Amino acid sequence: MATMRKHYSVSRPVYSEDSFAEDHEKVLRRRKTTLDHVKQYLTCDSKRAKNAVLSFLPIIGWIKIYRVKEWLLGDVVSGISTGLVAIMQGLAFSLLASLPPSYGLYTAFFPMLTYFFLGTSRHISVGSFPVLSLMIGAVVTRLVPEENFTDMTEMNQQRVMVASSMTFLVGIFQLAMGLLQVGFIVVYLSDTLVSGFTTAAAIHILVSQLKFILGLDVKGLSGILSLIYTLENVFGKITGTNICDLVMSIVIMVVVFVVKELNDKYKARLPVPIPIEVIMTVIACGLSYGFDFKQKFGINIVGKMVQGYEAPIAPSLDVFRESAAEAFPTAIVGFAVAFSVAKVYSIKHDYTIDGNQELIAFGVSNIFGASFRSFAASTALSRTAVQESSGGKTQVAGLISALMAMIVTMWLGFLLESLPTSVLGALVVVNLKGMLMQFREIPYLWRRDKPDCLVWVVTCLAACLLGLDFGLAVGLGIELLTVIFRTQFPRCAVLGNIPGTELYKDRKDYKNIMEPYGLKIFKIPSPIFFANIEFFKDKLIEAVGFKPLRILKKRNKALRKMRNYLDKRDTSSSERDLALGSLNIDQLHLPTDVKDLHFRMDWNADLPAHIKVPRVDIHSLILDFSTVSFIDISAVKGLKMALKEFIHIDVEVYIAACDVYVLEKLSSCTFFDNELQTSMFYPTVHDAMLHVLSKHVPEKNKDTIHAETSL
Amino acid sequence: MATMRKHYSVSRPVYSEDSFAEDHEKVLRRRKTTLDHVKQYLTCDSKRAKNAVLSFLPIIGWIKIYRVKEWLLGDVVSGISTGLVAIMQGLAFSLLASLPPSYGLYTAFFPMLTYFFLGTSRHISVGSFPVLSLMIGAVVTRLVPEENFTDMTEMNQQRVMVASSMTFLVGIFQLAMGLLQVGFIVVYLSDTLVSGFTTAAAIHILVSQLKFILGLDVKGLSGILSLIYTLENVFGKITGTNICDLVMSIVIMVVVFVVKELNDKYKARLPVPIPIEVIMTVIACGLSYGFDFKQKFGINIVGKMVQGYEAPIAPSLDVFRESAAEAFPTAIVGFAVAFSVAKVYSIKHDYTIDGNQELIAFGVSNIFGASFRSFAASTALSRTAVQESSGGKTQVAGLISALMAMIVTMWLGFLLESLPTSVLGALVVVNLKGMLMQFREIPYLWRRDKPDCLVWVVTCLAACLLGLDFGLAVGLGIELLTVIFRTQFPRCAVLGNIPGTELYKDRKDYKNIMEPYGLKIFKIPSPIFFANIEFFKDKLIEAVGFKPLRILKKRNKALRKMRNYLDKRDTSSSERDLALGSLNIDQLHLPTDVKDLHFRMDWNADLPAHIKVPRVDIHSLILDFSTVSFIDISAVKGLKMALKEFIHIDVEVYIAACDVYVLEKLSSCTFFDNELQTSMFYPTVHDAMLHVLSKHVPEKNKDTIHAETSL
Repeated sequence: MATMRKHYSVSRPVYSEDSFAEDHEKVLRRRKTTLDHVKQYLTCDSKRAKNAVLSFLPIIGWIKIYRVKEWLLGDVVSGISTGLVAIMQGLAFSLLASLPPSYGLYTAFFPMLTYFFLGTSRHISVGSFPVLSLMIGAVVTRLVPEENFTDMTEMNQQRVMVASSMTFLVGIFQLAMGLLQVGFIVVYLSDTLVSGFTTAAAIHILVSQLKFILGLDVKGLSGILSLIYTLENVFGKITGTNICDLVMSIVIMVVVFVVKELNDKYKARLPVPIPIEVIMTVIACGLSYGFDFKQKFGINIVGKMVQGYEAPIAPSLDVFRESAAEAFPTAIVGFAVAFSVAKVYSIKHDYTIDGNQELIAFGVSNIFGASFRSFAASTALSRTAVQESSGGKTQVAGLISALMAMIVTMWLGFLLESLPTSVLGALVVVNLKGMLMQFREIPYLWRRDKPDCLVWVVTCLAACLLGLDFGLAVGLGIELLTVIFRTQFPRCAVLGNIPGTELYKDRKDYKNIMEPYGLKIFKIPSPIFFANIEFFKDKLIEAVGFKPLRILKKRNKALRKMRNYLDKRDTSSSERDLALGSLNIDQLHLPTDVKDLHFRMDWNADLPAHIKVPRVDIHSLILDFSTVSFIDISAVKGLKMALKEFIHIDVEVYIAACDVYVLEKLSSCTFFDNELQTSMFYPTVHDAMLHVLSKHVPEKNKDTIHAETSL
Repeated sequence: MATMRKHYSVSRPVYSEDSFAEDHEKVLRRRKTTLDHVKQYLTCDSKRAKNAVLSFLPIIGWIKIYRVKEWLLGDVVSGISTGLVAIMQGLAFSLLASLPPSYGLYTAFFPMLTYFFLGTSRHISVGSFPVLSLMIGAVVTRLVPEENFTDMTEMNQQRVMVASSMTFLVGIFQLAMGLLQVGFIVVYLSDTLVSGFTTAAAIHILVSQLKFILGLDVKGLSGILSLIYTLENVFGKITGTNICDLVMSIVIMVVVFVVKELNDKYKARLPVPIPIEVIMTVIACGLSYGFDFKQKFGINIVGKMVQGYEAPIAPSLDVFRESAAEAFPTAIVGFAVAFSVAKVYSIKHDYTIDGNQELIAFGVSNIFGASFRSFAASTALSRTAVQESSGGKTQVAGLISALMAMIVTMWLGFLLESLPTSVLGALVVVNLKGMLMQFREIPYLWRRDKPDCLVWVVTCLAACLLGLDFGLAVGLGIELLTVIFRTQFPRCAVLGNIPGTELYKDRKDYKNIMEPYGLKIFKIPSPIFFANIEFFKDKLIEAVGFKPLRILKKRNKALRKMRNYLDKRDTSSSERDLALGSLNIDQLHLPTDVKDLHFRMDWNADLPAHIKVPRVDIHSLILDFSTVSFIDISAVKGLKMALKEFIHIDVEVYIAACDVYVLEKLSSCTFFDNELQTSMFYPTVHDAMLHVLSKHVPEKNKDTIHAETSL
């Protein structure tokens, strides 16, 4: 077996980092400074200008290669199916935003018009997204509470004003982030965080739709614990449930649920999924109109739709001020969802999307849409799936779906007037299935990654109880803390040599492992920074088994005693008294100057009986820095202090396998001085150990160890 | 030269992690589970019980070894000096808390009584701390604004109620944190953060004292931008400056400043620093009383002092609710400052302090003190320095300083009644020097560590403009983000072999470096987690120069074409049509089953003219994981997907130098399957490379490379 194996054989001088640098010439690389980057960014030539225009108007890129024959039919079919879904969702989601349903149609129309020109994704369906609608709704109900109004029209006008002003602000935030090129911030919203957050959103949505499904008249609430209060209100009035609403909702939910499952199951065989939501809406609309449900059963219907479009409005600065704290998380969530959905399809169809351009596109679309009273647009996964699966190739499909919404707004709105609101509520609820199914992630995460599980649970709970915006902030904070936490208490290890190799492993892990006498090899298994430097110092002291500062103080005290003794013997010398007098408690932590003593102290030899100094049983310490990916200034300070304490008691310190950039950082933070020098750095632990062994030839087991390590 | 050098020589089989595990027996170590820790924590025996009592009442530990002869004199002298300073500071800092000065004397008395029994630090002087006083003051002025009252006595009563209730809550938070053993959270307050924060506090204090120094009647403000508004108010009324106040303040500030500098300079020669603040106060008091400044110049004086003590009060739950958001940061800041000061002296005098016990001690002290109307206690660095430098050995000194405060409260308060408030203001301002000097850290940090500099500046600005509590939260957020940021965009590198060694370095860094043909060695220089996994995937694709998924899709398309071609030639086979039909776009990203093809595809050979598939010029990829200190579940998912893409286009993937715990994490997160196996792990990059080289013996440069690497 062993003979068949490939062989690893290396024979070279022992290198320190210094001698390695002597032997191997480095290439001088000039790193770009911040100034260079700025210069480069501001340079302008015709090619860059052309690229800038192309990247700002992605439509130029794809319209040139538009294959009318192959793509147009697909786009039209897809646009029509998506349009039907968009209309339904637009109506339903405006209930979440506490707005009259017709404004949802605006949201399905206006934002798409600008996204068509500016967006880089060819497949997402721009329009309302339930979580965003809910976040808008929270501000709407807070700023325009129901109880202040008797006239519903006036209330609705004010609400539309608030919603569109907030949408305007959301657009400004998105546009600003896009122009500042900070699209990367969505990486902070990890999958776990988004999953916990959207699950909480689903619960909020579910609770907010209960009143429509049950046909109750309950005020919309927002703020901390609003979920609990809303549930309390709903159950307080539950005896007033409208049976007609409830029955209709249940029937619709069951039918839609079953047909959706079938759609999923036979996805491969169906050319287009059955548009069951549209079918049920049409049926419900017809029944409600034909049998006059409103009069007979007293149900709520959509009512008078706004016909056509109104003149643009300017946003309200007062609303900006009041809603800024909510608009920012809304902007982030809206973009993050759209971007993650867009990415899925860009990978599938192999084209590139640009995060910053998407931010600009959504920013402009929201600003444009808000001017025409639409509310915040993003994308809904379900709608985008319809657009892509029914054959949409480009945003021409999106444009056609927007035109569908326009047709309904302009001419067909009256058909929807008798639609019961409970039907819309039921359609919203039945679409929550996917989001609520995310609860299944809890046991999965618990088994695999407890900190991640914590992030999920805390985000979900915080978003449920504190509101979506504040919950997102809390979740983000916890998520960042988990990263710190993972590096804060890592498992330090004392390493030993695997005999016959140059490999070093945790000495507790292997049966046959060798630790040279008088040498400790300590591995720091994570980056070092302000939050863990103290932890490492403690672990290092635990590993070596003594506190170097305490040893130094005891030695200094012992030296003082001995000098006193010498002075008594040799009364002629008076200058020594001075040196002794100045050695007060404040200087015990500094190394004493022993040049005036006529002998060299050997602290490990037998000392006179009256002098007690603990023995130090190591002569060298090697720190394995291979896993230290960065170090910050607090850590450099702390490390410097800790290592000096060892050097002061004559323990040699070596650092092995230190990264180039960490080394640069150390020297820029004035780590080096006359005690800490670059000569203590070695490229590998083995190099450092060979150096130590050759310097301190062990008396007892010289032969064995040396033979073993150089095998 | 080279002959003198020690030699590094290793000769062993090439190991993969699997074969290494076969050859080297591991020790089975059972890790403690959370349950074990809980069990251990709850175990009780007599020794543990004794330790628990000792750690809860640290006084038992040090009172036993109290050396009356050696220590008592020092403690008494120190207690008297500290007491004088504590009285002055108590009066002055109650102005910061917007409370009548006499309550500052309570703060110098009550908290010390319990700290004496519970505290682990023997040197800190417990009592008022300017930053805490200011944070209390912000809540006091917010909840009890001046304009609501005509009767100052009533206002002051309400203010004392608010201050003591908030202090009670601060105590509850600290006690709870102590009992939950979460004292470690202070590590998140890095030196940089604390420096920026206290500098902002100094600016707040300076601005808040202007009205006393100038003798103006300006309302105390709190909240966002209160600093600006206060300055505006002060400068609006500046024409009303009381010249007597201003002159007195300037004289006191100059004298105290100069004497303090002298104290510092001749520290070694002075047995006790000159108590210049006390001297100036006595002089000012005498002058003010003798010449009746209040009547003659209309200055503000301290006025009627509360004599003696009042019965304890219960805290107000309403204030709890209103001040919870501010009480929490106050609790953290109070503890963090006291702990950091205590640590300095515990290291100097070589005893241990216990963070959690300190939290308990301060919690109990604040709760106890609040019941007697004192406000939040921590320690002031200046006062503690007096206590230690004037010879204090134990908290007996603290107790004596508390008794001094009691004497003044009970019998000597009337002496202070004619003390001008401007004197107190001047004393506060002159003590800010140290905190304001921290501005010098900005250029220092800028040169050494830009992210740290950012943390400093943002914390300071946020705390100035948004208020101390909110500023602390913002600073903390930025600080955590910098840690993420440092690991988010690390410098990835493609490594090459330094000929003749087993060392691998960035191939751009060295002139003479070797990269074997067809092999890429990619180093991931930081932990991998949700925020940087996408970045790494991009960098990896950049390093290898192609997108594996795109290659796979092109190959699959090419295979389809070829099958079509084969089918046309060989019309008899009909079952292949089925296999072909199912290969729609959804499956292009999966590897095609090529078993039914009668030849093996060599994608790098010359393909038929009509089939274009980009060539892949590498056969193996080695990822150097030595710096990956942890990996989270999102990263495992992302990594798995990325590596599979390479495997699907027949690039072999190896992972080298992976940490034991990272490996455990990978297997617990179901990283391994039939494509990704443990056999791809190698203990070092060199092992992996030797394995690759032996598998893919390069035709052209076989001799050279092999000879070089096994030198």
